[in-house]
Amino acid sequence: MRLGTLRDGTRDGALIVVDATGKYFARPLGIPSLQRALDEWERCEPLLREVALELDGRNDHGEPIELERLAAPLPRAYEWVDGSAYINHILLVRKARGAAAPDGLETDPLVYQGGSGVLLGPRDPLVLPSADFGLDFEAEVATVLGDVPQGVTPAKASKYVRLLLLANDVTYRDLVPAELKKGFGFFLSKPATAFAPFAVTPDELGPQFRDGRAFLRLACTYNGGLVGDTQTGSEMHFSFLDLVAHIAKTRSFTAGTILGGGTVSNRDPSRGVSCLAEKRAREMLEGGAPLTAYMKPGDSIRIEAFDLAGRSVFGAIEQRVVAA
Amino acid sequence: MRLGTLRDGTRDGALIVVDATGKYFARPLGIPSLQRALDEWERCEPLLREVALELDGRNDHGEPIELERLAAPLPRAYEWVDGSAYINHILLVRKARGAAAPDGLETDPLVYQGGSGVLLGPRDPLVLPSADFGLDFEAEVATVLGDVPQGVTPAKASKYVRLLLLANDVTYRDLVPAELKKGFGFFLSKPATAFAPFAVTPDELGPQFRDGRAFLRLACTYNGGLVGDTQTGSEMHFSFLDLVAHIAKTRSFTAGTILGGGTVSNRDPSRGVSCLAEKRAREMLEGGAPLTAYMKPGDSIRIEAFDLAGRSVFGAIEQRVVAA
Repeated sequence: MRLGTLRDGTRDGALIVVDATGKYFARPLGIPSLQRALDEWERCEPLLREVALELDGRNDHGEPIELERLAAPLPRAYEWVDGSAYINHILLVRKARGAAAPDGLETDPLVYQGGSGVLLGPRDPLVLPSADFGLDFEAEVATVLGDVPQGVTPAKASKYVRLLLLANDVTYRDLVPAELKKGFGFFLSKPATAFAPFAVTPDELGPQFRDGRAFLRLACTYNGGLVGDTQTGSEMHFSFLDLVAHIAKTRSFTAGTILGGGTVSNRDPSRGVSCLAEKRAREMLEGGAPLTAYMKPGDSIRIEAFDLAGRSVFGAIEQRVVAA
Repeated sequence: MRLGTLRDGTRDGALIVVDATGKYFARPLGIPSLQRALDEWERCEPLLREVALELDGRNDHGEPIELERLAAPLPRAYEWVDGSAYINHILLVRKARGAAAPDGLETDPLVYQGGSGVLLGPRDPLVLPSADFGLDFEAEVATVLGDVPQGVTPAKASKYVRLLLLANDVTYRDLVPAELKKGFGFFLSKPATAFAPFAVTPDELGPQFRDGRAFLRLACTYNGGLVGDTQTGSEMHFSFLDLVAHIAKTRSFTAGTILGGGTVSNRDPSRGVSCLAEKRAREMLEGGAPLTAYMKPGDSIRIEAFDLAGRSVFGAIEQRVVAA
């Protein structure tokens, strides 16, 4: 089942159920928003699945989706917690700036708490306040969680993974060093995150979602050229189940919490990158200096994930940079 | 006007309007939750003020408040951003661990993004998973914001301060060093934050809210003994207006965002402390070693703020530590 959110002037937008082609939708009666569905998932999930089934059987297809009208599946969420599960990304970025691998790299996940009150839709522009900020995209797979009790183990975490998302975890790279030095984590360096049109139940991926990992092909197209064609599953060191267990060590989480897996990264350089920082890191390691500049007004980024059948699972994120 | 949230089995609880004595309440018709009121503040504020006025004029007082039934004013919030506006707190804690004052101490506020999906009520126990975590309370004043546009200046920020709160920003001190070393900010070291019963409009403080600061007396009573009797206004280096402008530099915020001012701290040691870390820091600086232990099961903390007339503005936070 695939769900989305139509902008309708309300804060949470209108929940829609998407058909198998990703081109048509139906509105579920009595479930106004995705957050409401997550609040009452046991009651709402079967109703939504019925709508999806009925929609795929219709001859008139339902209402056509206009991607420009879609918001993030959750236009505002109660939490946005982002892990960094791809070890290659951590090693590459640190190596390029001459920093050692962090202690516990393979046993203790890196996570940060992001802003969740204002999230961008798949076609929203990336408004850049200053060219000096070092704007970068970061393509990643994320989950939407149900109510997670404190202390849950990885083995019991899978039932709390309600939905999968595709995100552009936008970063102002040149604001990061000063913020890391302050010791309080990312803040100004992380503007609003953007999300692909569809939120997808894990079963929609079949065997391509297993062991708490989505096994998809992730394509990043920057200014019309393919810069990344990575695999999201095989090198995800910490699974989403590991990440759920990690974040729940000292608190519980409410339904609708978004948990990200971090920038997708593969060791094989021929696969390319899911963010410019990694491209720059590879350039530095090879030639001593980065060649690729960060994003500037007029630039465009397209992020899309495909299953084995070649279907665009979440629909595409397509954003253009504009000056503030 | 003072507002609160009654636990009623729903995720957001039921909004209540509190009378002048803090002992009675009325339910506003058609405004189910505080979040809903914040979502539609222009419409709801005058309605709520009418209910408050009517309540204070009633002979039958309204319904009696049972503090045990109250949740945090926002049991789940879209963001919880915590500043550190009291320079003395930063200097004291850093000096004790031999660290230098951070660059930009007086010009660049420290803020961190906290978890906001599960917030504790004023009487909720502090459940301690491990005695090794170094449980500490941190008493602070916070604000609830309306929709804050990106790029707002301090001069224009005051209209976005909707409500004031009193918080116990619970910290696991002994988990902090390892998390700071990871560079991604606090996460496991910050379990759920607790809040005093009442959310208060700034005008309720009269001239005791000015220049984006609340001027109140803050009392912290630990295991029955007064350990802190601090002033919240005079040494708040960055005002809430400064903090709003800082956090809005690279993104906007949605109505209901909670913004904290950080642990209240006064230079005069005779005023005591609003957290145990500062008491330990003073002990270290005086005698070379901390004497005060962090909180353990059975301990209690009471946090309460008073206006010049001696009225408890937010009602008291009263929490007891229990082993997990």
